Amino acid sequence: MTEGFGPVTPPDAQIRAAAEQRQGQLTKPGGALGRLEQLANWVAACQGVCPPKQFERARVVVFAGDHGVARHGVSAYPSEVTAQMVANFLSGGAAVNALAAVAGATVRVVDIAVDADTDPTISKHKVRRSSGSIDREDALSADEITAALAAGKAIADEEIDAGADLLIAGDMGIGNTTPATVLIAALTDTEPVAAVGRGTGVDDTGWAHKVAAIRDAMRRARPNTKDPVELLRVAAGADFAALASFLAQAAARRTPVILDGVVVTAAALVAEDLAAGASAWWLAGHRSTEPAHTLALRQLRLEPLLDLGMRLGEGSGALTALPILRAAVATLADMATFAEAGVSTADPDTESNDDTTASATTNSAATPPNLQK
Amino acid sequence: MTEGFGPVTPPDAQIRAAAEQRQGQLTKPGGALGRLEQLANWVAACQGVCPPKQFERARVVVFAGDHGVARHGVSAYPSEVTAQMVANFLSGGAAVNALAAVAGATVRVVDIAVDADTDPTISKHKVRRSSGSIDREDALSADEITAALAAGKAIADEEIDAGADLLIAGDMGIGNTTPATVLIAALTDTEPVAAVGRGTGVDDTGWAHKVAAIRDAMRRARPNTKDPVELLRVAAGADFAALASFLAQAAARRTPVILDGVVVTAAALVAEDLAAGASAWWLAGHRSTEPAHTLALRQLRLEPLLDLGMRLGEGSGALTALPILRAAVATLADMATFAEAGVSTADPDTESNDDTTASATTNSAATPPNLQK
Repeated sequence: MTEGFGPVTPPDAQIRAAAEQRQGQLTKPGGALGRLEQLANWVAACQGVCPPKQFERARVVVFAGDHGVARHGVSAYPSEVTAQMVANFLSGGAAVNALAAVAGATVRVVDIAVDADTDPTISKHKVRRSSGSIDREDALSADEITAALAAGKAIADEEIDAGADLLIAGDMGIGNTTPATVLIAALTDTEPVAAVGRGTGVDDTGWAHKVAAIRDAMRRARPNTKDPVELLRVAAGADFAALASFLAQAAARRTPVILDGVVVTAAALVAEDLAAGASAWWLAGHRSTEPAHTLALRQLRLEPLLDLGMRLGEGSGALTALPILRAAVATLADMATFAEAGVSTADPDTESNDDTTASATTNSAATPPNLQK
Repeated sequence: MTEGFGPVTPPDAQIRAAAEQRQGQLTKPGGALGRLEQLANWVAACQGVCPPKQFERARVVVFAGDHGVARHGVSAYPSEVTAQMVANFLSGGAAVNALAAVAGATVRVVDIAVDADTDPTISKHKVRRSSGSIDREDALSADEITAALAAGKAIADEEIDAGADLLIAGDMGIGNTTPATVLIAALTDTEPVAAVGRGTGVDDTGWAHKVAAIRDAMRRARPNTKDPVELLRVAAGADFAALASFLAQAAARRTPVILDGVVVTAAALVAEDLAAGASAWWLAGHRSTEPAHTLALRQLRLEPLLDLGMRLGEGSGALTALPILRAAVATLADMATFAEAGVSTADPDTESNDDTTASATTNSAATPPNLQK
């Protein structure tokens, strides 16, 4: 199954070096745009062209699925809300719609495992309704995990073939922070109590239920931490498998992705095991309030762009970060060089060593790959 | 002089309460959009209308001025770069231009004290060339400080009268982090070494020069910390005085402002003394790498939206933050309510107390005003 994603090659190092060099020629002190410079260089390396092009088709895909474990009091909301929110996405009333509109992205919703019949336009890739309750049974059968992985890959292919130059993965599913936490706690070897958050806002009693369910599910997950496909089958669900496969395939197809919150990042943690090196193609849009999200980001060595206390999912955090990526691209693509603008460069007698192109290159060479974004 | 800004009344508390209530009706768990919710509620309170309207005329004003102290080796760049960069702003090649274009803002440059002749379109409010070297003499004469304060107020009035519904203050001036640090260190009673940063990238020798200049300037500044106008006259410069006056007048005219980096925030610290309560109308766009910036933000009780290691000025950090403010407005203005979308609300048996509108109101009442953004 793993070999389905082919080798993942990193973004273009030569183009990244050219971008770093160009940063030193633009009308600003070297390094003065901080992380915007690293982001822009990463986009150039992903696109294989310097200066990079502004994103023309940024596309959000929201993976919707229900979870059997939600029947056991782990969420503040009933499972029927998943289908209701999917309908809300389709009529344009949700946060993801409002945020995509201002960020210049379009939204696609895919029903992977909603526990209801949904609009045929979104259910082409549906694997099943809901999932087995992971605290006591496998989430999926062998056939279902195969179908879910195929769905995620097909969705990535469809979007990239249609011209997407930036993908954002989002999630919707009542109860889905529970399998997300199971995946992350299992793969980072963390005790449940250190990883479990409030999800959509569960109270103390619900939180205790959630910890117990996660502890039970982790017992079933642990023997499978070396086998990403089996881990998804036993302890996650079809939406997680499709998400992981989507993220791995986007990387294999050299398309950058902005990750969202704890659910997407849990799938990303598994996707890195499905397709080693895939994380070089991902940017962490934000840090949510879920403790497990921070654990997963740390393991992936991804530094989130924003830290705004968000915890909604749907791709909302990634969409809030998208304009920052656009800003980064705009500076590298549109600013004048010192020569073009007739601006004097720094006095070599007083300039800090930090500001020379040579040492900027040295600095970034010393940075772990995922922190170059 | 101080009375020139009239009383500054806070953003509308009743509208803020209505916005908080509306947040609880939108199709998301209460509080799930984190700081975006507080931002949107603040914009509504500033506009006096809920839901708030998207910004139609976001306007950056870059205050350009040279500084006599730059002749004494405190910067990595020669003073001539100020006029060169002003020309670069006018031809659209600078970071501020690239960032404004993607953020949907327009840029105005004003020459307050550039040490060169500039285009007549931007020099209407020019007070003088450069300033006295603040480590050894007053920055301005009595007439000059009066003219500079009048200039900032007039510029705010011009922009607001022309329809600006959001202002961004930016700066350009070789050497200007030196007076910024003097103002902040003096007003926060901080030792120079704890406040001095690298500016555009000065080396160790230059940093030592800068610390010495700041120490000398602080000796001249300290007797004037209770008199904001005299402090600006002795220890800052015409660009700082115009910035402070602009920020105070924007607040008096009930127009929200996104602050940028250390220079703008130094002026803001003085502006709060010119017009008490003005800071309720300001949002801190980002935290720069200058240590004094963090000191000033803390004193103003402003929590920056972004922390991306930027240190350019020009309004660049504020412009990078602007799309987040737009995103916040979009969610409060454009999302469907639970009732409109036919989505079930949280199960009252399992919902966290944190998620009720009532407790959200309680929480924000306990938050200092400036942290509600």
